[in-house]
Amino acid sequence: MNGADAVLQTLADNGVEACFANPGTSEMHFVSALDREPRVRPVLCLFEGVVTGAADGYGRMAGKPAATLLHLGPGYSNGGANLHNARRAFTPIVNIIGDHATYHRQYDAPLTSDIAGLASPNSLWLRMAETPDQAADLAAEAVHASFGPPGGPVSLILPADCAWSEATRKGPALARPSLKAPSSDTVDAIARAVRGAVKPVLLIGGAACGERGIRAAGRLSAHGVRVLTDTFVPRQPRGAGRFSPDKMQYFAEMAIADLAGSDLMVMVDTLAPVAFFAYPATPSLLVPEGCTTATLAVRGEDGAAAMEALADALGAPMEAAPNALNLPATPTGEINPYTVGASIARHMPEQTTVSDDAVTSGMPVFLQTRGARPHDWMSLTGGAIGQGIPVAVGAAVACPDRKVLSLNGDGAAMYTVQGLWTIARESLDVTVVVFANHSYRILGVELQRTGAGKPGAAAASLLDLGDPRLDWVALATGMGLPAVRCATAESFDAAFAAAMAQTGPSFIEVAL
Amino acid sequence: MNGADAVLQTLADNGVEACFANPGTSEMHFVSALDREPRVRPVLCLFEGVVTGAADGYGRMAGKPAATLLHLGPGYSNGGANLHNARRAFTPIVNIIGDHATYHRQYDAPLTSDIAGLASPNSLWLRMAETPDQAADLAAEAVHASFGPPGGPVSLILPADCAWSEATRKGPALARPSLKAPSSDTVDAIARAVRGAVKPVLLIGGAACGERGIRAAGRLSAHGVRVLTDTFVPRQPRGAGRFSPDKMQYFAEMAIADLAGSDLMVMVDTLAPVAFFAYPATPSLLVPEGCTTATLAVRGEDGAAAMEALADALGAPMEAAPNALNLPATPTGEINPYTVGASIARHMPEQTTVSDDAVTSGMPVFLQTRGARPHDWMSLTGGAIGQGIPVAVGAAVACPDRKVLSLNGDGAAMYTVQGLWTIARESLDVTVVVFANHSYRILGVELQRTGAGKPGAAAASLLDLGDPRLDWVALATGMGLPAVRCATAESFDAAFAAAMAQTGPSFIEVAL
Repeated sequence: MNGADAVLQTLADNGVEACFANPGTSEMHFVSALDREPRVRPVLCLFEGVVTGAADGYGRMAGKPAATLLHLGPGYSNGGANLHNARRAFTPIVNIIGDHATYHRQYDAPLTSDIAGLASPNSLWLRMAETPDQAADLAAEAVHASFGPPGGPVSLILPADCAWSEATRKGPALARPSLKAPSSDTVDAIARAVRGAVKPVLLIGGAACGERGIRAAGRLSAHGVRVLTDTFVPRQPRGAGRFSPDKMQYFAEMAIADLAGSDLMVMVDTLAPVAFFAYPATPSLLVPEGCTTATLAVRGEDGAAAMEALADALGAPMEAAPNALNLPATPTGEINPYTVGASIARHMPEQTTVSDDAVTSGMPVFLQTRGARPHDWMSLTGGAIGQGIPVAVGAAVACPDRKVLSLNGDGAAMYTVQGLWTIARESLDVTVVVFANHSYRILGVELQRTGAGKPGAAAASLLDLGDPRLDWVALATGMGLPAVRCATAESFDAAFAAAMAQTGPSFIEVAL
Repeated sequence: MNGADAVLQTLADNGVEACFANPGTSEMHFVSALDREPRVRPVLCLFEGVVTGAADGYGRMAGKPAATLLHLGPGYSNGGANLHNARRAFTPIVNIIGDHATYHRQYDAPLTSDIAGLASPNSLWLRMAETPDQAADLAAEAVHASFGPPGGPVSLILPADCAWSEATRKGPALARPSLKAPSSDTVDAIARAVRGAVKPVLLIGGAACGERGIRAAGRLSAHGVRVLTDTFVPRQPRGAGRFSPDKMQYFAEMAIADLAGSDLMVMVDTLAPVAFFAYPATPSLLVPEGCTTATLAVRGEDGAAAMEALADALGAPMEAAPNALNLPATPTGEINPYTVGASIARHMPEQTTVSDDAVTSGMPVFLQTRGARPHDWMSLTGGAIGQGIPVAVGAAVACPDRKVLSLNGDGAAMYTVQGLWTIARESLDVTVVVFANHSYRILGVELQRTGAGKPGAAAASLLDLGDPRLDWVALATGMGLPAVRCATAESFDAAFAAAMAQTGPSFIEVAL
């Protein structure tokens, strides 16, 4: 048993079942060890942004970490943006970052870099192994640390000699850390505040937006407390039978208007709301003047239990009135994100998992699917576009029996377009939808909102994807996916219905 | 004049003429400023790895920095691997990294991250502006710092409010730092050592591999000193009329065999040679036992001047015998990297710039083009695959009158495949060649060499790109490039001849 075997077996003993990988020479012994550890499924991705985004999608759905296998500092860097998103989603991920042999680092070979420096900002925990036995222990620690709470990516740097040298043993299997519930004093204080408030609002984020949290929030809603989720949440159960909270508006001035008159804001597993970006004449903090803020559960505490306790303390009903199944009529005519959303709501089967990186096209689909069959919605938690395809890859690996729907703006989809190949390679049950508006449309809006003025030729050229137009059907088929382009509401409805009726990969370009 | 105008005008005053960009909301004022500064050409890239690789190619050819425009920490991360390569190429680059407004950072909005932490490892110089006037001064400092010597990427973090608030002035125009020549004592000492050596070898890297350095190295070669370049150099003039040094072998055991008997190794603008990776039974340092090492010029010193002085001191001839024009015959039969190299040598016009990211297919082309028409060769200095297409983008923007040839392994090309779109968009005179062997072939070799054993099913799946096969013609045409697939030596010869005979983008898949 070499160090790579010891690390991999320890990961498996601690529940790791998938390894999204783009390896290089320094990871060859880890690659070879995968041949000897059938509990861990290797999944090749052709770019590290796909690797890390897939691990994020996996972790959100499995509730436990996948491993990534990354090639030194540059391999890690390539995966950095989706690890930023994963950090913001509190997704447990164990990065295994290969490095030069310990004795080789001193020579400054071309691939040498400050891996710890690169990885620190997006790692909850980061260690570098110096021996095979230590690497095995650290593998166990890494899984444990990835759970937080709140969870997030962790990084184990594995020098090549720690992988190829003999190990004497595996690392331990560690118990998963448990969530702490807020004290009854906190619950009582907040119950008093809610009773005394005229227009209380509850803001929930992170794990509090899971199945149990949404149910508890529904009870509070039924008691008269307005419930909002963060604008972007890691994973939210939605659709028929579930409570359907509003969400914080993306644009600051709309959020402020929406919250007008609220006199108490109670946070659960989130922070006080803040504008996604700063704008010259708009406040950053989205708490209305005169509104008191209070925290029921800090990040990483058991927000669902806290909301249940609060609902009990307030004497709230045991269940909210469930959201009814409400499927739109067949859309007709010109295709747009609303007609696409209607078709998605109509045909998406129960248990579909939605990976949303559709930027300006995402909200219409979100609104249209409020009364769709029960499904999960995963949003872009960190604002770094390019996670829609990779997160879908990981979700499909985590839950092979569930249909996955990947919604992408064309600008966003190009970031990690390589993920289409992994969907084809692994025959994942993923339907990829790309909204081809041939622009970074959100930036056209933001250019105005930031007061940067009307775009001239240079600025316009930096927001435009239309010259030449990307041929998404060619790109998808070039990576092995069956693909169609839909230019009318009816054709999308038919194509999407067909995709939902079969199992396996498919791709639809929405020609906007 | 707002801060963005002040920064941009200062960059232009200091010689910056191109800005490779993928902006977001926090960069909208900088984008708008590009409308008002016609000296800087904006070039949109659909992924930041293309942005930074293009800036690398630009800097290698222009000898001065381009700016990049990157969106906060995740945008920087996406460009990180090609900045690693640029750091290893000593390429001046000025990264402008947009950030939240200074007052907004405290709220931990979703895109907030430790930008300075992420950017430090690959930045020679890094500063964060706090006011518009300071930003303007820092823009001048940034250009100056990027020249080193040796040069490299620098990073200026530009908070949104420093861009949108009023500036009172631009920053200064600073003089470019000059190179220092080694002392005559050093030259004399090395001349003595060379005279006393039986089998001296000169190892040159970095800027010493430029036009003047190669000429001076040729004089030393004519005097009986064996000359080698580093395995991977930023830019090397080659072909007919130039001196043609050998290069350090990539594989350590071959390098050691090649250097056997050398009793003196003189380094110019490089460090003692080291294996690219460590292997269990192979030394890391590639200096033969008993071989003395000496440094004629440390990194960033004027290596060309040092070699000229050494050649004078040794009484070397004023010129080496020039490398003769030697074009291969028309290749026939089965296509392989050697036949492709022959066709490239036959048809590549004078002044072609080659961007080599072809991994196992690159060396055959390099060997075949030794006697081709005069050209420049840019190699993968940092080992992070995915620079072949972006570097070609930047080289073509820097030198619009020169044909650019981008050579890529299929695995490497997928990393930054989005760069094909920018080639089409800007109608760059770039011919992209992808060697489609449908595998990470180098890793098949390295798996054996590292002693990781024969690949089983899991390991083999991580080295294989062939299931499904990427359809490169579909991918290239999907991004707007005219593309062909060549499966015989003759068809490639004809297709490549046609690409060289016209001006503008083209794409050839080599079906291996």
